[in-house]
Amino acid sequence: MIQTTLTLPPLPLEGGGVVEPHRTRVWQAGPTDGPVVLLVHALTGDAQAGGEGGWWAPVIGPGRALDPTTHRLVCVNNLGSCYGSSAPTDAGFPRRTTQPPPGPAPQKGHFTDPAAALPAVITPWDQARAILQALDALGISSVELVTGGSLGACITLCLAALDPPRFKRMAPFAGCLAASPWIIALNHTARQTLLADPGWPDDPARGLALARQLAMISYRAEPGMAMRDDRQQVGDGWAPRDPYRVQTWLEHQGQKLVARFDAQAYLCQLDAMDHHDVQRPQPGMAGDPLGRVTASCLAVGIDTDMLYLPAHSARTAQALQARGVHAEHAEIHSPFGHDAFLIEWAQLDGLLRRALALPPGGSP
Amino acid sequence: MIQTTLTLPPLPLEGGGVVEPHRTRVWQAGPTDGPVVLLVHALTGDAQAGGEGGWWAPVIGPGRALDPTTHRLVCVNNLGSCYGSSAPTDAGFPRRTTQPPPGPAPQKGHFTDPAAALPAVITPWDQARAILQALDALGISSVELVTGGSLGACITLCLAALDPPRFKRMAPFAGCLAASPWIIALNHTARQTLLADPGWPDDPARGLALARQLAMISYRAEPGMAMRDDRQQVGDGWAPRDPYRVQTWLEHQGQKLVARFDAQAYLCQLDAMDHHDVQRPQPGMAGDPLGRVTASCLAVGIDTDMLYLPAHSARTAQALQARGVHAEHAEIHSPFGHDAFLIEWAQLDGLLRRALALPPGGSP
Repeated sequence: MIQTTLTLPPLPLEGGGVVEPHRTRVWQAGPTDGPVVLLVHALTGDAQAGGEGGWWAPVIGPGRALDPTTHRLVCVNNLGSCYGSSAPTDAGFPRRTTQPPPGPAPQKGHFTDPAAALPAVITPWDQARAILQALDALGISSVELVTGGSLGACITLCLAALDPPRFKRMAPFAGCLAASPWIIALNHTARQTLLADPGWPDDPARGLALARQLAMISYRAEPGMAMRDDRQQVGDGWAPRDPYRVQTWLEHQGQKLVARFDAQAYLCQLDAMDHHDVQRPQPGMAGDPLGRVTASCLAVGIDTDMLYLPAHSARTAQALQARGVHAEHAEIHSPFGHDAFLIEWAQLDGLLRRALALPPGGSP
Repeated sequence: MIQTTLTLPPLPLEGGGVVEPHRTRVWQAGPTDGPVVLLVHALTGDAQAGGEGGWWAPVIGPGRALDPTTHRLVCVNNLGSCYGSSAPTDAGFPRRTTQPPPGPAPQKGHFTDPAAALPAVITPWDQARAILQALDALGISSVELVTGGSLGACITLCLAALDPPRFKRMAPFAGCLAASPWIIALNHTARQTLLADPGWPDDPARGLALARQLAMISYRAEPGMAMRDDRQQVGDGWAPRDPYRVQTWLEHQGQKLVARFDAQAYLCQLDAMDHHDVQRPQPGMAGDPLGRVTASCLAVGIDTDMLYLPAHSARTAQALQARGVHAEHAEIHSPFGHDAFLIEWAQLDGLLRRALALPPGGSP
């Protein structure tokens, strides 16, 4: 398993601005001549998919679904993240334009966005284009399976639409065709909480912690939270000033993210979640992007997911079937909500094996 | 329909402190000698249940489920709210004690609570005791039906446990036996967002708006939000800086609350939500408080509720049945989540009629 940094061509962003210089961090395992499995990480993840501390380590290894003795495994740090790819912490990273957008003026009065202090908007289309550049740099023209969860699932769909011949199969976990208003609403409140921190943009630690707390709630589910944290207070019996366990857990989660993630990179990733729409027309692409997909698909939802609701995965499969693509749908059963794609290892292993066995699409 | 202010006896709080002077605001409609229906409002509601702007106006009126030509309708502004009852805006309102609670020291390092700047903790037990004092002052010794939604449902359960002979029937909508860790988690993040506002405690307008935004999300459901707000931006087509409609809606909701509600009163009400537990032993009450209930019950959940999940209403009915009480369970079907108890008027009207027709419990 190795990590390398690649220098990539300048990348024009969908929402304006160009990432230049452009670099990315890549993790790889397995033989360079083996069939390729491309992994795409989620919001605050990194390229380290397998091995110690890897976000999908329990399904990666000899004899496991993603086997580096037979397959070349590749994971690229997402654009705008802060684990080795171009990110807003770079001096040259594009900033949000102060030009008003076309159409009626946005209702700026409702927003605290100090535009000039914000990084350029990143979308999953941008993140997918950056990954394609990385595959080019690595000489990878054919991918057996591209897979990822959450934002990683959204980027997976964009990859399959951007370069259909390159991808034989895909397995988006807990994703959607387009971000729902529900997701946009949660992200709006998180983003505004971060921007409301008086320390923004230099040290919005509390704002970032609170944004993460809100996100962590949405990654869990009500029943699973009851199982794990219960109503118990840290003291004995009930006392009005004692925190309940779940409060201590949330504070801990917020602080953990503050210690490892950059606030502006976090904004970039929230933007990417919001602006996901695999059916939004793209420059140089005729018609509905989803209509270009040829990769076979296993779209997987999580029955208790309170962020990317399971119906969205079913709809993804249906939309692809309607366009003549071989698409299947499955559901992970878990009390733990959205985060089940990082918890339910036995089910994930089985589903990844099933995805690898799909009839190949992609290049005819 | 009249509103009056009552002076009530001093009220010792469950978590320490005494409300003195103690007053409350009461709304009434119908004949003073009619059978009494007691309504209990939710988090940021007020005593004005019926009439223009009343929170349950569509089910209150001649020929409707709650009919002021036949019944005496009573609603009391909840303790710690800011619509005429004793509240933290009062000079004499008790503050949170700086004494450490019994048991191990709370993990204060995890919390930004500047204790001295906070009002005393209010619980639904306190709010129920204040309502009982108001009923005493009004000379009401028997109540045909006590009903309310959300926090109002929690207070309803406490009322039935505190003074069993007084209540013949109850109908808690979208409530629970005890606040779930899910609810406590959402409230924690909202509360800490409010406290993180640099304007706290004098003018935490942005913090209050953001806390309300988070709450508003939890009052809706993913499918209903998609129906109403969609992904549409305010401009034409997609532009990276245009807000999606749901963002403008959230900002509007936050500002509306800031214009009408006090931040410290909001904290009090969040505390009440968190500390709801109808099975927590109470002073001067032997055993499980729920075991005292004799009122017949119709516990109503909402199928898409993402805050007080519908399973909790089913459990409330089951817990009462297990204690020999006549308890029924029903579910409102709605795409609008928790707020359905303020939206689905036809279903509410039918359910309130059903509740009024329950065999009477209470005093034998």
